[in-house]
Amino acid sequence: MSFITNLTHKSWTSMKMRFSKSNPEKKLFTPGPLVCSQSVKEAMLRDLGSRDGEFINVVKLVRQKLLDIAEVSPEEFTAVLLQGCGTYAVEAVFQTCTPRHGGRALILANGAYGKRMKKICDTCGIPSDMFEFPEDGIVDVAKVKELLEKGVQYALVAVVHCETSTGSINPVEELGQTIKQYQPQAAYLVDAMSSFGAVPVKIQNGQIDYLVSSANKCLQGVPGFSYVIARKSELFKCRGNSRSLSLDLADQYEGFEGNGQFRFTPPTHTLLGFLQALQEFQEEGGVNGRAKRYKQNCTVLQRGMEELGFCKLLSRECGGYIITTYHYPNHPNFNFEEFYCKLCQLGQLIYPGKLSNANCFRIGNIGDLYPSDMKYLLKCIGKVLDAMDVPVPVPVPAPICLCVA
Amino acid sequence: MSFITNLTHKSWTSMKMRFSKSNPEKKLFTPGPLVCSQSVKEAMLRDLGSRDGEFINVVKLVRQKLLDIAEVSPEEFTAVLLQGCGTYAVEAVFQTCTPRHGGRALILANGAYGKRMKKICDTCGIPSDMFEFPEDGIVDVAKVKELLEKGVQYALVAVVHCETSTGSINPVEELGQTIKQYQPQAAYLVDAMSSFGAVPVKIQNGQIDYLVSSANKCLQGVPGFSYVIARKSELFKCRGNSRSLSLDLADQYEGFEGNGQFRFTPPTHTLLGFLQALQEFQEEGGVNGRAKRYKQNCTVLQRGMEELGFCKLLSRECGGYIITTYHYPNHPNFNFEEFYCKLCQLGQLIYPGKLSNANCFRIGNIGDLYPSDMKYLLKCIGKVLDAMDVPVPVPVPAPICLCVA
Ligand SMILES: Cc1ncc(COP(=O)(O)O)c(C=O)c1O
Ligand SMILES: Cc1ncc(COP(=O)(O)O)c(C=O)c1O
Repeated sequence: MSFITNLTHKSWTSMKMRFSKSNPEKKLFTPGPLVCSQSVKEAMLRDLGSRDGEFINVVKLVRQKLLDIAEVSPEEFTAVLLQGCGTYAVEAVFQTCTPRHGGRALILANGAYGKRMKKICDTCGIPSDMFEFPEDGIVDVAKVKELLEKGVQYALVAVVHCETSTGSINPVEELGQTIKQYQPQAAYLVDAMSSFGAVPVKIQNGQIDYLVSSANKCLQGVPGFSYVIARKSELFKCRGNSRSLSLDLADQYEGFEGNGQFRFTPPTHTLLGFLQALQEFQEEGGVNGRAKRYKQNCTVLQRGMEELGFCKLLSRECGGYIITTYHYPNHPNFNFEEFYCKLCQLGQLIYPGKLSNANCFRIGNIGDLYPSDMKYLLKCIGKVLDAMDVPVPVPVPAPICLCVA
Repeated sequence: MSFITNLTHKSWTSMKMRFSKSNPEKKLFTPGPLVCSQSVKEAMLRDLGSRDGEFINVVKLVRQKLLDIAEVSPEEFTAVLLQGCGTYAVEAVFQTCTPRHGGRALILANGAYGKRMKKICDTCGIPSDMFEFPEDGIVDVAKVKELLEKGVQYALVAVVHCETSTGSINPVEELGQTIKQYQPQAAYLVDAMSSFGAVPVKIQNGQIDYLVSSANKCLQGVPGFSYVIARKSELFKCRGNSRSLSLDLADQYEGFEGNGQFRFTPPTHTLLGFLQALQEFQEEGGVNGRAKRYKQNCTVLQRGMEELGFCKLLSRECGGYIITTYHYPNHPNFNFEEFYCKLCQLGQLIYPGKLSNANCFRIGNIGDLYPSDMKYLLKCIGKVLDAMDVPVPVPVPAPICLCVA
């Protein structure tokens, strides 16, 4: 008995064809998955055994290099890789680094990824308080000071570095100093998913205990695993806390230290791609080199968009150079779906907005992208506006860009 | 300040070199990651946006095709893909498909992967009973009947199909009928990680509610995600159960049904590889075609090993054709580490044993392997035994191969 579902042999073959044809590649102006270099993808053309010495060496190299990029000592910190996406690593820290009973988490949120942390805590049964800051601003250190003085004792305080839902950059170092001043018992988690490797963070200076990122952000690997740069003295206290075997960071760490292996089957090809990505990262000049190119990309983008009349959500003080959020133009002919699709047809993939109360879209400039790519995108945006009969410069929405911090 | 760790620029470059050189590829006789076809790996040479229509179509096709392979109707079942490795999907079923309070799980174990289920339950705080059957046998239906009659009510009963730690094949269909006869309220989970797509399972006949497997087993994709073929009527009852956001199967399902997307960043490249792998699976003749080749591989292997004097752990009734477990030869010159390394030097990667109380090793025959590969492996084994000065036929251990079922 075989239910062929909607998928007759013929339709399967013809649908399949559409993917195998060498489609003109789209440029991804998204915050991940992003455009990877051809050489990173080609590094995946090998099958390695997950317990083979060669693969164990790949894992070791990757873990060492991550500490090196983070500018922390291997005596004090360790890099724990985790199969799966970035959210898993964020959850793994919450699961592992709060006690099974009684430990409370404080989440400092100014966008969707902060709110997701709250959802993680609620689902995992971790008592937590979320304090929300305006989405078009940054987390306010003075306010956090007040919160910490209130007397509620926290086991973990968490914040996002680059809140990718807007592009704002939170002052994670100042926040860390404040947290440790008022609540030295609290561990400090920074979600640096979309910034690590391109926006400098001083882990020591910011007294960060756990920094999370993933393979397919600023280090320009393909998606498939995430990682946590963890302070060993903190992590060691956390054995037996996790209510999930898969997401137990302490157990995963012990696996690596024990025999150099992942506890469970790792994405070997993704790791090979990542090793190549780290090599290219180093050749570009590390964090400074990568930051330089992303800043150039961002400058070209923002100047061009300004010329087209688009209005940024964030003020200059709040925004970084990873992704930029723009208000929809205030014109009846502008329809975001159409705008998006027409750009897509031109091979340019932008990103919808993720805000609760503003009509916005986002353009990222990370990945294997260069100023020439940003210029071409701007040209395409001009073309699409023309095709949609939206005048340039586009009419700005009222009220415009406020940074209510 | 930069801690260069052990990794000076020079050592990094030279270590890196070792991987970029076109090393002669090893053949993986392991149960995954396994050898994938070149075309599967080449399908990963593209970057797709995770929200792009093209990728959403890939996901849709893959999910449909999995149901098709499982021979179940899309009205009754759904395929839920999950970022990460196979253990995550097994945990996701436990997390999602037992109630938050009071639901008890029964685990029928005859090897390492059954025991891992117990560890999952203990970590997640799910009350559970594990009944252990001998590792060199299969789960005994009559015994299970007794267990189910005892009166303890279970929310979930779980068993492994091919217990990869030995290669034994459990009678999952008979077990399912028995479970549903004695405890119709219990959901039934089958971990078919290393068998799905190559060892036929009648999901309907076996009354299976959740069947778990992963991308890099018999469907011959690269590692990076796992999947659950889930009975919708069961899954729908499970909303809000999961104590993990990342591993919430019901939420993941709703993500797919809502907008066709993964909730969080998917391993896009792995999915592209898997789509190609499914195409090649179909071209080989589906489950029957794949089973045929694996059986041929296994026959060549087992005949050759028998000629060399090696003794299988399992009797013919217990073992399948996925992976075979062999006792160490009973000779002072045989040392497994040396045997393994020498084979590795010849480009042949076998697998250590995973038994509590027998010295064994394993040889898998799944993946892009053919009888000629098995023959070459046997030749290499002969060479290595010669180099180790172990006589052929190798002396058998006493007591020999018993199937204590
Ligand atoms: C700041 C931040 N946190 C968390 C995530 C979630 O990562 P993932 O989608 O890999 O689960 C993202 C994804 O873009 C992110 O930008
Ligand atoms: C039967 C079985 N269950 C579970 C697993 C665990 O899968 P993973 O290593 O992908 O987590 C395996 C891995 O080989 C397996 O064979």
